[in-house]
Amino acid sequence: MAILVVGSVAFDSIETPHGKRAKILGGAATHFALAASYFTDVRVIAVVGEDFLPEHEAVFTKRKIDTRGIERAAGKTFHWTGAYAGTLAEAQTLGTDLNVFEKFEPKIPTAYEDSEYLFLANIDPVLQARVRSHMKNVRMVCGDTMNYWIKDHTENLKKVLRELDVLLINDTEARMLSGETNAVLAANKVLALGPKSLVVKHGEYGATAFFGERSFAGGPAPRPFRAPALPLAEVVDPTGAGDSFAGGFYGYLASQPELTPTVFRKAMFYGGVMGSFAVERFGTERLQAVTRAEIDARFELFREISHLDHAAV
Amino acid sequence: MAILVVGSVAFDSIETPHGKRAKILGGAATHFALAASYFTDVRVIAVVGEDFLPEHEAVFTKRKIDTRGIERAAGKTFHWTGAYAGTLAEAQTLGTDLNVFEKFEPKIPTAYEDSEYLFLANIDPVLQARVRSHMKNVRMVCGDTMNYWIKDHTENLKKVLRELDVLLINDTEARMLSGETNAVLAANKVLALGPKSLVVKHGEYGATAFFGERSFAGGPAPRPFRAPALPLAEVVDPTGAGDSFAGGFYGYLASQPELTPTVFRKAMFYGGVMGSFAVERFGTERLQAVTRAEIDARFELFREISHLDHAAV
Repeated sequence: MAILVVGSVAFDSIETPHGKRAKILGGAATHFALAASYFTDVRVIAVVGEDFLPEHEAVFTKRKIDTRGIERAAGKTFHWTGAYAGTLAEAQTLGTDLNVFEKFEPKIPTAYEDSEYLFLANIDPVLQARVRSHMKNVRMVCGDTMNYWIKDHTENLKKVLRELDVLLINDTEARMLSGETNAVLAANKVLALGPKSLVVKHGEYGATAFFGERSFAGGPAPRPFRAPALPLAEVVDPTGAGDSFAGGFYGYLASQPELTPTVFRKAMFYGGVMGSFAVERFGTERLQAVTRAEIDARFELFREISHLDHAAV
Repeated sequence: MAILVVGSVAFDSIETPHGKRAKILGGAATHFALAASYFTDVRVIAVVGEDFLPEHEAVFTKRKIDTRGIERAAGKTFHWTGAYAGTLAEAQTLGTDLNVFEKFEPKIPTAYEDSEYLFLANIDPVLQARVRSHMKNVRMVCGDTMNYWIKDHTENLKKVLRELDVLLINDTEARMLSGETNAVLAANKVLALGPKSLVVKHGEYGATAFFGERSFAGGPAPRPFRAPALPLAEVVDPTGAGDSFAGGFYGYLASQPELTPTVFRKAMFYGGVMGSFAVERFGTERLQAVTRAEIDARFELFREISHLDHAAV
């Protein structure tokens, strides 16, 4: 069933120990949409400038992603410049040119209104809330955010959190949002803010899902679930790993008839799988070209590296 | 089958956000021995001072740990003072009084010479090598080390690494020993130094095992294996978590008739289990009192939080 994602479509200029790229296609909605497109239909709401060319749009349409909600505005596309060093765990932002994104007003095409799954990528929580209230009848809402909104737009963000089925954030964001350093206490406080479930991403260490009483229909909250990440000898570009995780996670969920604890766990694995592909090349290169067979093989690899009873050799 | 462990028996003075304790029983060999004692016979080689009282020895003997190799020397027992803050990921060392440990010369009682499993806890690699060469006929040798030996005693340490079946270290130590920031490249370089297998501990994120060609008889190197850690709402005292991991890991290995990939994986889980108990109370308090039934229940919990197909609620 179709996922509607609202977020950034951007150009990224990136430097990592493996090289550098100028103004390649990026943005949270882009990585998310590409990753999710291997599982279900995806529709994008974003704004781009005049420098967004047919070759960029083709990246989406080749994956059958619906781009009717990508608005063209006068000016330039959002441009992020960043660098990674050391363990590549964290990006150093060197420049953020919001350009047309500064005045982004999400417009929802009529053709998108029957979307059953909504993903609120990392944008101003005021806009997240607006899209969410327009899409009243969705079956599920997941979302992301970042330190900037947590720190300076807390009250707006809290309104969004109350509406979420699943919030996907990283360790630092969970600590910042909760004011707790302990991961379990942090998760409990975040869940108390409203999301039914919480996925905390740990970068190269995988991700942990925390569940509340309302995570699944008719049952107490299951234990947390820890999904591994794949140990990779070469991380070329970590940009978009978290958004690709979210795309694999939510794409798989949306492809399933029902949300059960087992479906949620598998979704965590598919999230890790898509994140692991994303970082193998610069930008969206790998996510454009991966195959479903490769995805399923890597899912099995994730099982193999984490399960006691898997055929070991 | 019996494990011989050589390492420190010490007193620790510890401050954490949950309180403080002065001169409680600690030391790598102590935590290791207690954790391993739930799986197999354990014999300790260490040196203590005149302040090591019958009540301290009773902590070992109550768990049927053989203390004949704990030598009494004139002077005081090794005393470590440390504090933890924030995420409790790393201790701040406030004092290291080596005392009788400074002139530690491991002496191996005749009764220990038939030990089939040897654990070289974190001590001077010269001493590790000496014990190892005395115990020529052991079936398996595992060991630990720390930044101090990696940095300033590299050549001595390398001699020990060549003799190891399994080296257990943490992320920082793996990076320091290899000079690589990427976890897979670091593991490959460490394996090239000699250990047949490598276990890298990630603190609250669990641990990863990396295997070489010689990890298991008759087969290529299996993929890495990622064991989870248990998300804990309360970490009272992280001191000894890594040594307890090693004790659970190696204790389980030594209790099994054969080293197979599945046995290794389960050992990783038992390592995590014992580490998770260790940090629930100050010092060795929890490891003195845990039961085998609690250990096995927690093993199942580790499976539940990491396996796709486990009964989820």
